[in-house]
Amino acid sequence: MTIPKTVNPDLANERKKATFDVEEFTAFIHDGESFLQLKRLAEEELFSDLPDPVELDYLSYEDYYNRTVEQCVNAITKVRAMQERVNPGGLEVYHTLMTGPMGTTLMPGGTPMGVHFLMFTRALKNQGTPEQYEKFGRRADNCEILGTYVQTELGHGTYLRGLETRADYDRQTDEFVLNTPKLTSYKWWPGGLGNTVNHCIVVAQLYIDDEPMGLQLFFLQVRDEQTHKALPGIDIGDIGKKIGLQAVNNGYLGLTNVRIPRTNMLMKNAKVLPDGTFVKSPVSQLAYFPMVFVRCMIVLVNSGFHAMAATIATRYSAVRRQSPIKPDEPEPQVLDHVTQQMKIVPEIVTAIAYRLAGVKLNKMYEETASAVGLSDYSRLPELHALACTLKASCTYDSTFGIERLRLACGGHGYLASANFGNIFTWATAACTYEGENSVLYLQVGKILLKTWGDMLSGKPLMPTMAYLGVCASWHEFPEWTGDWQCLVQALQYAATNKTLIASKSYTRRLESGLSPPDAFNVTGIELTQAAELHGRAFVANNFFEEVTQNRENRSASLNNLLEQLLELYLVHTVQRHMADILRFIHLTDEHLTSLQDRLETVLAELRPNLVAICDGFDFHDKVLSSVLGCYDGNVYERIFEAAKKSPLNQRDVPASFAQHLKPFMRSSL
Amino acid sequence: MTIPKTVNPDLANERKKATFDVEEFTAFIHDGESFLQLKRLAEEELFSDLPDPVELDYLSYEDYYNRTVEQCVNAITKVRAMQERVNPGGLEVYHTLMTGPMGTTLMPGGTPMGVHFLMFTRALKNQGTPEQYEKFGRRADNCEILGTYVQTELGHGTYLRGLETRADYDRQTDEFVLNTPKLTSYKWWPGGLGNTVNHCIVVAQLYIDDEPMGLQLFFLQVRDEQTHKALPGIDIGDIGKKIGLQAVNNGYLGLTNVRIPRTNMLMKNAKVLPDGTFVKSPVSQLAYFPMVFVRCMIVLVNSGFHAMAATIATRYSAVRRQSPIKPDEPEPQVLDHVTQQMKIVPEIVTAIAYRLAGVKLNKMYEETASAVGLSDYSRLPELHALACTLKASCTYDSTFGIERLRLACGGHGYLASANFGNIFTWATAACTYEGENSVLYLQVGKILLKTWGDMLSGKPLMPTMAYLGVCASWHEFPEWTGDWQCLVQALQYAATNKTLIASKSYTRRLESGLSPPDAFNVTGIELTQAAELHGRAFVANNFFEEVTQNRENRSASLNNLLEQLLELYLVHTVQRHMADILRFIHLTDEHLTSLQDRLETVLAELRPNLVAICDGFDFHDKVLSSVLGCYDGNVYERIFEAAKKSPLNQRDVPASFAQHLKPFMRSSL
Repeated sequence: MTIPKTVNPDLANERKKATFDVEEFTAFIHDGESFLQLKRLAEEELFSDLPDPVELDYLSYEDYYNRTVEQCVNAITKVRAMQERVNPGGLEVYHTLMTGPMGTTLMPGGTPMGVHFLMFTRALKNQGTPEQYEKFGRRADNCEILGTYVQTELGHGTYLRGLETRADYDRQTDEFVLNTPKLTSYKWWPGGLGNTVNHCIVVAQLYIDDEPMGLQLFFLQVRDEQTHKALPGIDIGDIGKKIGLQAVNNGYLGLTNVRIPRTNMLMKNAKVLPDGTFVKSPVSQLAYFPMVFVRCMIVLVNSGFHAMAATIATRYSAVRRQSPIKPDEPEPQVLDHVTQQMKIVPEIVTAIAYRLAGVKLNKMYEETASAVGLSDYSRLPELHALACTLKASCTYDSTFGIERLRLACGGHGYLASANFGNIFTWATAACTYEGENSVLYLQVGKILLKTWGDMLSGKPLMPTMAYLGVCASWHEFPEWTGDWQCLVQALQYAATNKTLIASKSYTRRLESGLSPPDAFNVTGIELTQAAELHGRAFVANNFFEEVTQNRENRSASLNNLLEQLLELYLVHTVQRHMADILRFIHLTDEHLTSLQDRLETVLAELRPNLVAICDGFDFHDKVLSSVLGCYDGNVYERIFEAAKKSPLNQRDVPASFAQHLKPFMRSSL
Repeated sequence: MTIPKTVNPDLANERKKATFDVEEFTAFIHDGESFLQLKRLAEEELFSDLPDPVELDYLSYEDYYNRTVEQCVNAITKVRAMQERVNPGGLEVYHTLMTGPMGTTLMPGGTPMGVHFLMFTRALKNQGTPEQYEKFGRRADNCEILGTYVQTELGHGTYLRGLETRADYDRQTDEFVLNTPKLTSYKWWPGGLGNTVNHCIVVAQLYIDDEPMGLQLFFLQVRDEQTHKALPGIDIGDIGKKIGLQAVNNGYLGLTNVRIPRTNMLMKNAKVLPDGTFVKSPVSQLAYFPMVFVRCMIVLVNSGFHAMAATIATRYSAVRRQSPIKPDEPEPQVLDHVTQQMKIVPEIVTAIAYRLAGVKLNKMYEETASAVGLSDYSRLPELHALACTLKASCTYDSTFGIERLRLACGGHGYLASANFGNIFTWATAACTYEGENSVLYLQVGKILLKTWGDMLSGKPLMPTMAYLGVCASWHEFPEWTGDWQCLVQALQYAATNKTLIASKSYTRRLESGLSPPDAFNVTGIELTQAAELHGRAFVANNFFEEVTQNRENRSASLNNLLEQLLELYLVHTVQRHMADILRFIHLTDEHLTSLQDRLETVLAELRPNLVAICDGFDFHDKVLSSVLGCYDGNVYERIFEAAKKSPLNQRDVPASFAQHLKPFMRSSL
C-alpha cells in the first residue's frame, strides 16, 4: 500500500475555507514564538530516524521494555547534544520537550528514565547539601548513575504520614538501617525502579532511638553499577503490566536491614547529627512545593493530550463520509452532522481553555518560585489551591473528553493505530498520580470553606477567590444580559452559592453534634461540587480575560476566531452547570432558548475553521501517530498500511491452525 | 507469595453486617433460580483447568492470538459436551453463557469464533432455504466449517446502503461475481475473519444486468479447508491491534472477480431465479430483527460488565485503608469516606437498574419473536425503539461508569491485574458496534418526533411512549411530593417537554424554509437529549415497578434493600437531570436540599450492605479475574503474586542493560 503524496481533497478544501492565519493562532496558543521554534527544531532532529511505532504494538511485554530502553538512550543522547548546542549546561530541552507530546512520541509506552530527570536529579539538587550534590547529584545529572524517587507503598499512597518504611539511626556505626517491615510497606509504583535504575531516593519514616521524626529522604544504591544485580537486603522488581505506559518500568522495593551512611540522608533542610540529634527543617511550607510544580505541568500536558485527540477526531471527521443528510444526496463529511460537531467542538475549546489556564498557572508558579527564592512564601497557598483545582478538573475533563472523541470516530477509533488508546491511558493516569483528584477537590473544598469564614470575618481573600466576596455581597444575581461577563459571573455566582450551601451543611452538622472531621466527611459531596465549579469558573474567567484583553496585539481575524471559541466555551459550560445556575438564578424559557440558539449558531460559525484550528495546534504527524489524524488525510491508505504490519499477516497460515483449529473441525466430521 | 486461606477481616466483617439474604437477592437479580443453576454448573466445569489469565498479558500479539485459539477450542469442546448432557441438540449453553462474563473469562481477549456462533450459524438458519441449511448450515452448526458475518467496509459502517461490495449475476454461468471495487470497499472488522474462519457470509449489493437490487447475503468460502490458504481472488488478513479484544481476530477481505454459484445467495426471503429474475422479500420489516436481538443482549451484557467493575471497586474499598477521617484515629476503610461511597454506590444501582431493564427488554423480545412467528409484526416498532434507547444509554453509562470505578481504586486500578482494562475495552466497544450510539439516539429522536405528531392528531401511542400523552395533557407538573412516583414522573415530564422543545425547534426550522432533513440535522442536539431522557425515564420507571410490584414474593429484608437501591437511583438520576427538571418544574430550595439529604441518608443506609450486594451479583473469582476484587479480599498478596509473574522478574538483569544502559552510563564518565 503506497500512501498518496497528495492531500485528501476534503481536507485541502477545509484549509482553503479558514478565515484566519493559522500561524498567528499557533503562536498565540504556544504563548509566543520562542518555544515554538525550539519545539520545531527538536522535532526535526529527534524524529528523523524514529522507528515505526506500530511495531511496538506487536511486541511482547519484555521486548517492548527492552526496545524502549534503546529508544530512550538514543533520544536522551540526542537531547543532550542539542542542549549543548542551544544552551550548554542547561536543562530546558529535556524539561520543556520530553515531558510533553515529544516524549510520548519518542517513547509511546512511557520512559523508565522520566523520574530520573524530573524528580531524582531535582531532589538531589534541591534537598541535598552542596556536598551531597557534588557526591551524588552531579553523577545523576551526568547520567553516570540512574535513579528514581521512591515514595508510594503497596498499602499507602495519598496519606504520606501513613508510610511504613523506616530508617532507624544507629549511633554506633553512624548509619541508617532501612526496612520495609510488612508486605504493605513494600515500595510500589516508582517509574524505572523495576529493572532500570541503580540508585534511588527513598522516602522513609526517620526513627532515632525508636522515636519517629517524620518523613525524610535517603539516597540509596539498589543495584551494582557493574553487574546491575540487586544489592544484599534489597528485593526489587517490576510490578507488572498496566493498562498503559507499559515501558515506564514501575517497580517494587523491599528492604531488609539495608545500611547506609548517615550522610546519605538529604540534609539541606532537616538534619541528623552524628550524636543522633535531630534538627528540624526551618521551612515547612516548602514540603509540597515540588509536587505543586508537577501539578502545574500536568495541566499543560493533559490539555495537550486533549488537543491531540481533538485534532485526530476533527481531521477524520472531515475525511470520513457517512449517512446522507438529505436522502438523495451523496454522503456528507461526518463533520457536517450537527451531532458530530457537538461531540467534537466542545472538546477543542475545552483543550484551548485549559491550555490558556495552564499557561497562566505556570506563570504564577514562576513568580511564586522567584518570590520563594527571596524567602517570600505569601503566594504559596494560592498557588497550591489553584494547582490542585486545575490539575483535578483538567485531568478529568481531558480523560473523559478523549474517550468521547475516540467514540466520535466510530469503529476505526478502536484501532491501536488510531492512537487514542495511548492518549487515553496517558491522560487518565494523571487523574491519579501527583495527588488523586478527589483528594485534591476535597483540599480545595477545605480551602473554600476556610475562605468563606475569612470572608465573613472581613479578612482579605486571595485574588483567585475574591469573587466569592463579590458574589456573596449581591442580594440577587444582576439582570441577565447573557453577555460573556454575565456568563462568567453566573458560574462564579453558582460556585459562591455552592460554597455557601456546603458551608451551611457543615455548620448544621457541627451544631447537631458531629465532630469537625465527621462533619467535613459527610459534607464531602457538596464540597467537591463547589470545588469543581470553582475550577470551571476560573477557567472560564481566564479564557474571557485572554480573549478580551490585549486585542490590539492580534489581527482582527484571530480576535474574531477567539471570540467564537470563547462564545462556545462559555455557553457550553453554562449549559453544563445549568442545574446549579437555575437553582440560584432565575432564567426564563427565552433565556434558555437563546443559549441553545447561540450554541447552534456558533457551532455553524466555527464549522469552516475546525480543521485549521487543529492545524494551529501544530502537532507533528509523528506526535499524533494516528492513521486517522495525519495532516494529509490519507486515512484509508494508512489504516490499511498499518494493518499489513500485523505479524499475523506475515505468514499464510498461523501456527494455531494445524495445532488446534484443523483437529477441532475434523473432530466434528 | 502464598495467598492466605483466610478472608480479609474487614471483608468478613462487612458480610456479617448484611441485613438481607444474599442468595435471595442473587435469585432476584438473575431472574430466578434456573439460569443461576446452569451458570454455576458451567463455572464448575469450565473453570476447573483454566490457564492463568495473567500469562496472556505478557505475550506478543501473535502468541496471544494462537493461545486464544487453543483456549477457544478447549472451551467449545467442553460447552458442547455439557450441552449434550443438559439438552442434546440445543444451543442455550453457548448462547446464554458464552456471550456474557463466562465467555470473557475463558477468552479475555475475546474470541475469534464468537461471530460464528452468534451470527454466521443463525443467518444460515434464518436467512437460508432448508436446502441451504442442509448444505451449509448443518456443517456450520457442527463446526466442520468456521465462518463469520462480513458486512462493514473500510469506508462504510452505519450507512448500509452505502456499502460498495457488489455481486453481479452472470446468467451465462449461473454465478455471482463478487468484487470490492475500491480500497474503501474492502470488508473490514468482522470477528474471526483475519486468520481463523474458512467461510463467511458476505453482505453485498446485488446487481442484475448492472441494475442494483439492494443488499443480499452470500455464502462464500475464503480459505481452503485442508491448507487454510486463501482461495484465488481473495485478499484476506488481520486488521491489526486494537485497544482491546486483541484475540477477536477482526479481519479484512478484498474480492477480485470471485465467482460463486447462484445458489450461494441466501434465498429464504429474496430470490434470484436462473434467468435473472429478482424476487423481492415479502417481509421488509424483518430486515433489522437480527440486529434487535443483539442489541437486547448487549443491555444484559454491559450491565454485567458494569456490575463486575462495581464489585471489584467495592471489595477493594472495603479492604483498602486510607487517610484518617479524624486526625488521631487509624485510617478507615476507604469506603467510609462519603465521597468514595458517592463514586461507587451510584454505579452499583445503575448496573442493577439496567439489569432489570435488560431483563424486561429481553422478555419483550421473546414475546415479539413469538408474535413474529405467527406473522404478527405489530410490536416490532416498539421493540426496535426500546432496544435502540437502552442499548445506547446502557453502553454509555457502563463505559463511563467503569472508568469512574477504576479511578476510584487509585493507582492499583491502573494495574492490568485489576482487570478494569479488559472490562472497559469490552464495554466501550458496545457503544460503537451493532448501531453506533449517536445514530441510535437520532433514530429514537425521530420516533419521538413522529410519536409527538401522532399524539397531537389523537392516534394511539405505543405503551412505552404513552407517558408523553399523559404529561402533555398536564397544564403544569402536579404538586411536588418527592415520592418515587413523583420522581419518575419528573423524569417523564422532563422527557416530554424536551420532546416538545425539539418538536417546536424542528417546526420552526421547517417554517423558516429548511428542508425536513436539514431541519432534522440541526435539531439533532435537542433530539439526542430528548432520547437520552426518554431512556433514563424508562429505566427509572421500570425499576420503580419492579420494586413496588410483587412485593409479596420477596422477604421483608429484601424489599427493604430494594427500596433503598431504588431511592438512591431515583434521587441520583433526578439530580443528574436537574437542569432539565428545573426548566419545567418549579422546585424550591427546600425541595433541592431535601433531595441532597435523602441522597446522603440512603448512602449511609446502604453502606453496611454494599459488599453483600456485590456478593449477590454472584461473580465467580475467575470471572472478576481481579487482584483487587477477589472474594477473600487478600488484595496485597494477590497484587504481589501477579507482579512476580512479570517476565522481567524471571531473570536478574534484562537484556537491555548490557546492550544499552551500561554503555550509556559509561559514556558519561
